[in-house]
Amino acid sequence: MRQERKLIMLPGPTNVPDRVMLAMMKPMINHRGPEFAAMLGSIAEGLKYVFETKDEVYVLTSSGTGAVECAISNIIDTGDKVIVPTFGYFSERLKETVARHGGKPIEVPVEWGEAPTAELIEKAIKQEKKVKLIAVVNNETSTGVTVRDLPKIAEVAKRNDALLMADSISILGGDYLPVDKWGVDLCVTGSQKCLACPPGLAMVFASKRAWEVIDKKATKPPYYFDLSSIRDHWLRKETPCTPAISLYYALDESLKMIREEGLEKRFQRSAQCAKAFYDGFEAIGLKPYPAENVRSNTVVTVKLPSGVDVSKVREIMKERYNVIITGGLGKLRDLILRIGCMGIISEAEVLTTINALENTLADLNHPVKIGSGVEAARKVFR
Amino acid sequence: MRQERKLIMLPGPTNVPDRVMLAMMKPMINHRGPEFAAMLGSIAEGLKYVFETKDEVYVLTSSGTGAVECAISNIIDTGDKVIVPTFGYFSERLKETVARHGGKPIEVPVEWGEAPTAELIEKAIKQEKKVKLIAVVNNETSTGVTVRDLPKIAEVAKRNDALLMADSISILGGDYLPVDKWGVDLCVTGSQKCLACPPGLAMVFASKRAWEVIDKKATKPPYYFDLSSIRDHWLRKETPCTPAISLYYALDESLKMIREEGLEKRFQRSAQCAKAFYDGFEAIGLKPYPAENVRSNTVVTVKLPSGVDVSKVREIMKERYNVIITGGLGKLRDLILRIGCMGIISEAEVLTTINALENTLADLNHPVKIGSGVEAARKVFR
Repeated sequence: MRQERKLIMLPGPTNVPDRVMLAMMKPMINHRGPEFAAMLGSIAEGLKYVFETKDEVYVLTSSGTGAVECAISNIIDTGDKVIVPTFGYFSERLKETVARHGGKPIEVPVEWGEAPTAELIEKAIKQEKKVKLIAVVNNETSTGVTVRDLPKIAEVAKRNDALLMADSISILGGDYLPVDKWGVDLCVTGSQKCLACPPGLAMVFASKRAWEVIDKKATKPPYYFDLSSIRDHWLRKETPCTPAISLYYALDESLKMIREEGLEKRFQRSAQCAKAFYDGFEAIGLKPYPAENVRSNTVVTVKLPSGVDVSKVREIMKERYNVIITGGLGKLRDLILRIGCMGIISEAEVLTTINALENTLADLNHPVKIGSGVEAARKVFR
Repeated sequence: MRQERKLIMLPGPTNVPDRVMLAMMKPMINHRGPEFAAMLGSIAEGLKYVFETKDEVYVLTSSGTGAVECAISNIIDTGDKVIVPTFGYFSERLKETVARHGGKPIEVPVEWGEAPTAELIEKAIKQEKKVKLIAVVNNETSTGVTVRDLPKIAEVAKRNDALLMADSISILGGDYLPVDKWGVDLCVTGSQKCLACPPGLAMVFASKRAWEVIDKKATKPPYYFDLSSIRDHWLRKETPCTPAISLYYALDESLKMIREEGLEKRFQRSAQCAKAFYDGFEAIGLKPYPAENVRSNTVVTVKLPSGVDVSKVREIMKERYNVIITGGLGKLRDLILRIGCMGIISEAEVLTTINALENTLADLNHPVKIGSGVEAARKVFR
């Protein structure tokens, strides 16, 4: 069976709706003209809706990692202490970014597959003096773990006069994250994850508390990531540098689709699909990688039985069954599968993916009762 | 008369060919998979052709300004001396970027509308000791001036044991720039100018001499712009962060179109169109802004007669005649018009633009012999 398009079940980039793809065909325009300004206004409203904030969320032409660097480099001066819980590949990268901008990362190591708790962070912040920032990967794309304590960690930050930054790249728009209500000070995401856009744009939210720190910062951030300049331009509906106009069209369309569906419905849809994945895997006899209480609704990970080769599973799923998933990162490279549960995710994509995985394991002569995973997943939707 | 699409005669973004636009509709793929790797290989070959180099040219998901910052921040350590001739808005910005990364910019001021000469740069470098880099805006998009001495400035750099960086954002792919032959060490450009892609990608070339400096650099550049990491990933046909996949499709297609046409023919086409613009303007009685010997073939600028309002001219050209051009930057804001002569530029676009300008000036009751500009321009193509 050949499909025209393979199903992209990666933890980003994800499947992009046709409406969003087609939006990129709109004609080129002057990024200093009224048409672009009108679109920026529409995007600004859409982002406020998705981040659930009254403040501004800024768009960068970069990957999500660029937005993380933007947030860090606009807050941190040389020697500033930053608490970074590390529990996967992207939190390690966050720690490195803090160090690269002269910050002093105070690592709070957590076992991979687990999430940092507010208690753990509070203990760490009590031991240190004058911590400027708590920087948390909200959803570890490498392990499929969500930090469910984020609102409590925000309280810890406030109590200890620190800011909280959330790297929400693989979760924002797919699970609850009301930044104003929870008190998140800096929050970044990327276009190609739960917003279901093509990759290439990233978003940065900064709270009033964050701006007080940014405005007082001694050294200047990289020119390209200078949030003060980005804000000044944003308020007159411009960007300091030429924006990726076609991707802005896509983002505007995707934000419209999210508003049409409604956040609550979108979160429930993703949560239901994630549950179907986890139930399906367990029915096949596979164990989800993360601890049960911290399993992500947007990035699903599962351990492979020993002796089953990750790259072979991926290859067969892609070539025979037209479903693209990925393996682990870093030390988990050959141990787990990672699957995106984002954007347009629905029963169809979940069943297709579980079916492909069942067939693949059978093709590899792994004992599996074909259909058991699909059946367990199917039940979740009834 | 309403056209479906307005003619985008901006000095970037420029009109994008349908083939390139449609390439963005290709399906989302894994940026760590073989399909993306194959595309990166094709892009790499295309970029070597356009930059006329045997070495690698790297692609960033950012604007051209991001690529300038990438080049500067991978070369400059605190206190390093950098000669920056300033002769417009973007060379001022380049100077600021040098300073922001701890470099000591040695400004060589040149009158706006003129270009720095090799003699001037050599005089400046002789006065200073241990200059690490000469950083030149190759084509000042704000004034429409091309630095025709670039190959001679490369010789000055070599003689004085400095590197040469060219910000070639608005010229590469539109006029001669063989980086190997001329000895340019770092050269950056953007997707939305002479390559006729949508905005959002930028390219960085580094010579072997440049890599010797980059590899010895004491401090690390921003994570997102770390050229060593970008190179390591590029050599295995990957990018460190998620790339703007749809824009890579567009870039690949645009590079194929450039190879089909051939660089020489493309440069001649742009030069001929630029001459038609300049001749057309003079026939109308308007004076090109730059000195005659440094006029750009890719960004055309012209002074408006006193009493004629730049924003009114732009508005009428856009609303009545469907042609979008722009005004000056910085101190030239209300004095000149700037017009892109890039990408798909041909006789049709030139005549349409000049015709629109003639009509607009007549609409504004400026004495102009309607048809004289079009006639002068038309002759250039016969």
